[in-house]
Amino acid sequence: ENVLENVPAVYRQITAPSHPDQEYYTDSGLVIPSISYSLRTRLLSAAEKYGLSVPRQLEMVGRSASEMALQLLGGCHRINPENSHQRPRAAVLCGPHMQGAQGVSCARHLANHNVDVTIFIPNAVKVINWLQEEMNLFKCTSGVHVQNIKEMTSGSVDIIINALDSHDNEQLHAESWYKAVVNWTRSHRASVLSIDPPSYGVAIEAKWSLSIALPLPLQKSVGKIYLCDLGLPARVFTELGIKYESPFGSKFVIPLHSSE
Amino acid sequence: ENVLENVPAVYRQITAPSHPDQEYYTDSGLVIPSISYSLRTRLLSAAEKYGLSVPRQLEMVGRSASEMALQLLGGCHRINPENSHQRPRAAVLCGPHMQGAQGVSCARHLANHNVDVTIFIPNAVKVINWLQEEMNLFKCTSGVHVQNIKEMTSGSVDIIINALDSHDNEQLHAESWYKAVVNWTRSHRASVLSIDPPSYGVAIEAKWSLSIALPLPLQKSVGKIYLCDLGLPARVFTELGIKYESPFGSKFVIPLHSSE
Repeated sequence: ENVLENVPAVYRQITAPSHPDQEYYTDSGLVIPSISYSLRTRLLSAAEKYGLSVPRQLEMVGRSASEMALQLLGGCHRINPENSHQRPRAAVLCGPHMQGAQGVSCARHLANHNVDVTIFIPNAVKVINWLQEEMNLFKCTSGVHVQNIKEMTSGSVDIIINALDSHDNEQLHAESWYKAVVNWTRSHRASVLSIDPPSYGVAIEAKWSLSIALPLPLQKSVGKIYLCDLGLPARVFTELGIKYESPFGSKFVIPLHSSE
Repeated sequence: ENVLENVPAVYRQITAPSHPDQEYYTDSGLVIPSISYSLRTRLLSAAEKYGLSVPRQLEMVGRSASEMALQLLGGCHRINPENSHQRPRAAVLCGPHMQGAQGVSCARHLANHNVDVTIFIPNAVKVINWLQEEMNLFKCTSGVHVQNIKEMTSGSVDIIINALDSHDNEQLHAESWYKAVVNWTRSHRASVLSIDPPSYGVAIEAKWSLSIALPLPLQKSVGKIYLCDLGLPARVFTELGIKYESPFGSKFVIPLHSSE
């Protein structure tokens, strides 16, 4: 039974050009339609055209994802001077694509905040420039980068961050390195935060997921969904036929609830 | 009497190459030395060299400053769907320089979050490219840009954000547009948040100030000081002879207390 059928107009401040596959709602009752990955891609490109460059977008996603992960790790109770001898440990799993670059951006901020971070990125033939730029920055932190999951930290980890999945390339799932990483996660009990999971689903079940700008229609396996404000200005939405008013209020990351 | 004289070593995780003019401390007791503007400039340039570009730094300052302003405006109690008919009003005063660009970046995020924003930027002969890039992005929001303070919103404002002062050019204070803006602020009772105030002092007394990366030696007129994490990786501090461990814990903005 769809709880959003009779919602008053004041709570429908966002409408997409085509009927959404899925609708979500916020803690304050605002209805958030899902949009397709292709519409979202055009949204981010339009923002880029006006000056919200990919590095700016990567910085915003990395900042929001790390801020969320720091809270999930226990926030100030876990990360403080008295606790600096038992730093939380994060494994950040990144594919060779834009979502992987988002993962490395998040990992960099975590390492800057004294989290013991190990990132996995497969030894891909071709690395997109944005991912390379993030990897160069990550090298300036105390974090560790492995190219083979066997080298991943042996002990337990406090959180696994999954940025393995690309929206454009579901075939990655068939890669041997991908299967090895999935097995590795199954042998670890840490909770999983997925960054920008694709609509077609994830091989690694997540406890939480962070979607960006406007949510895609996501499957249950992505767990509890949060939406991250990318700072896209109003004109970008208008240009793509999306009636939009920010649902974020005073926050930059908000929880979403499924309407089913 | 300096409260920090006998602080145990574990709370001195940051030491600058030269004796600091001023020392601050955090809520958890960590001692934060001030650094000179020239050392800070070299710190930000070193970060830029490794890939933390100026636009990324501007995005981080704008994000932190707006997040702080949104809380100062009342957070979720003030900014929510029930209140959308009485949007908070912000006047953001920007000089023709990097701090002005930080101010416009903050203004953009506030406008994205349904704050009624008017920015003032004087009609300068030469606008640095970073400020121009921020102005182009701001044009995509619902915010308003005035070049003469007389055109600034006539009614009351809920917050004034001051990004007028440049660290390199104290002579701006003698400009007629600068004096007119200072007079305008004195005729308005709204509290002032200063972004990245200079060591030589501010003409507009602030209730709060946001300093970036590591604090400069600041005067009392800047009010309560907060420090914003710019995401500078560890190697950058090491390279400039600064022993550094992040004081931010799980936060990206922390309050600082003066040791005097």
